[in-house]
Amino acid sequence: MIQVIAFDADDTLWHNETYYRDAEANFRRMLASYHDEAWIQERLFATEMRNLGHFGYGIKSFVLSMIETAIELTEGQVTGREIQAIVDLGREMLAHPVEPLPHVLETLATLRGQYRLMVITKGDLLDQEAKLARSGLDAFFSGIEVVSEKDEFVYRAILARHGIAPSEFLMVGNSLKSDILPVVAMGAHAVFVPYATTWIHEHVEDVDPSRFTTLEHVGLLPGWLSAQG
Amino acid sequence: MIQVIAFDADDTLWHNETYYRDAEANFRRMLASYHDEAWIQERLFATEMRNLGHFGYGIKSFVLSMIETAIELTEGQVTGREIQAIVDLGREMLAHPVEPLPHVLETLATLRGQYRLMVITKGDLLDQEAKLARSGLDAFFSGIEVVSEKDEFVYRAILARHGIAPSEFLMVGNSLKSDILPVVAMGAHAVFVPYATTWIHEHVEDVDPSRFTTLEHVGLLPGWLSAQG
Repeated sequence: MIQVIAFDADDTLWHNETYYRDAEANFRRMLASYHDEAWIQERLFATEMRNLGHFGYGIKSFVLSMIETAIELTEGQVTGREIQAIVDLGREMLAHPVEPLPHVLETLATLRGQYRLMVITKGDLLDQEAKLARSGLDAFFSGIEVVSEKDEFVYRAILARHGIAPSEFLMVGNSLKSDILPVVAMGAHAVFVPYATTWIHEHVEDVDPSRFTTLEHVGLLPGWLSAQG
Repeated sequence: MIQVIAFDADDTLWHNETYYRDAEANFRRMLASYHDEAWIQERLFATEMRNLGHFGYGIKSFVLSMIETAIELTEGQVTGREIQAIVDLGREMLAHPVEPLPHVLETLATLRGQYRLMVITKGDLLDQEAKLARSGLDAFFSGIEVVSEKDEFVYRAILARHGIAPSEFLMVGNSLKSDILPVVAMGAHAVFVPYATTWIHEHVEDVDPSRFTTLEHVGLLPGWLSAQG
């Protein structure tokens, strides 16, 4: 029945959150003489939330939020050298090798002959295309869709454009809010593969776990698909 | 013969460059006590070119380049308050009303019944989708394609995905490099509508003007189309 499998990218195909967490740790250390770490983290998160509607997702937005937080928390005393160090954190994140998560490579190799595989991801277009190329995984996929929100409307538009019925479509991802809930809402299939850490903004309460499948890692996907008959 | 008309967005459908030029003028004024304006502009452009591969196009990249240039040109003496003012320039650019250029509205209204209209634009995904919505022009278009580069390969992929033959396709835009040359290279039609100012990075030399049409403004497009028979 399932003919098309779409994967989320960040933290489903490759590590991502961990680089944000590393950059945040560097950022907190940088401002440690001004404030305690918990307060720095809290203010950074507040700035990110305030900026999301203006700047969107991705590393550049994150860098701008770190810069604004540094100015706020130092009452403007942050130095040019420190700001440059924050911009450089972003440049390092963008240049980071894109490492596929465990089991991803063999899972894609197993599924490629039987299913049409695609990537559906939020984020910055240039970032995501570059990451897919650098991951070495691009040959497995027939296409990448970079969208600014992952809601039911967006999924319906993608499926319509590709001529895919919801019953034929499986979404695999680490975000209940973005990868699972809108997909089950339109009657398609969803497999939730949690990542070790999940950005607080992505947390969702009160989810009915009977409406989708949770797998511990993506390597369990071929077995689950076989069991669906 | 032409059935699908794709429009570039920035500086073809609405003003864009002019906001960058305004922000640059503010930026130069901000640093006027450190350097003369020509040198500030030259260093900003150099920083933008250096960052293009890392940060891509769009307002956030531009803001990061202004910040780095300010740090460089002040040898790190730029204040937190000044950096915040630069970030605020970016936020103002993002919040700016999106004003359709003269003739755009009536041209789209004229063409909508006879042709399938779409938008093909470079830039940041969230920025461009938001601008199309805020322009009030989104109802005229059957789709928007936000791409990270506009080269022949990308145009071919878009046409293939939509099942459009090159001979049926017309691209309208203000950039020879992005809107005209790759389109005529694949045997499709192109109409060049120059904007008053064009970013120096977009300048192209040695273009054969017999391979495309130049119109003074987009309001001349329906007449030109009629003349094509």
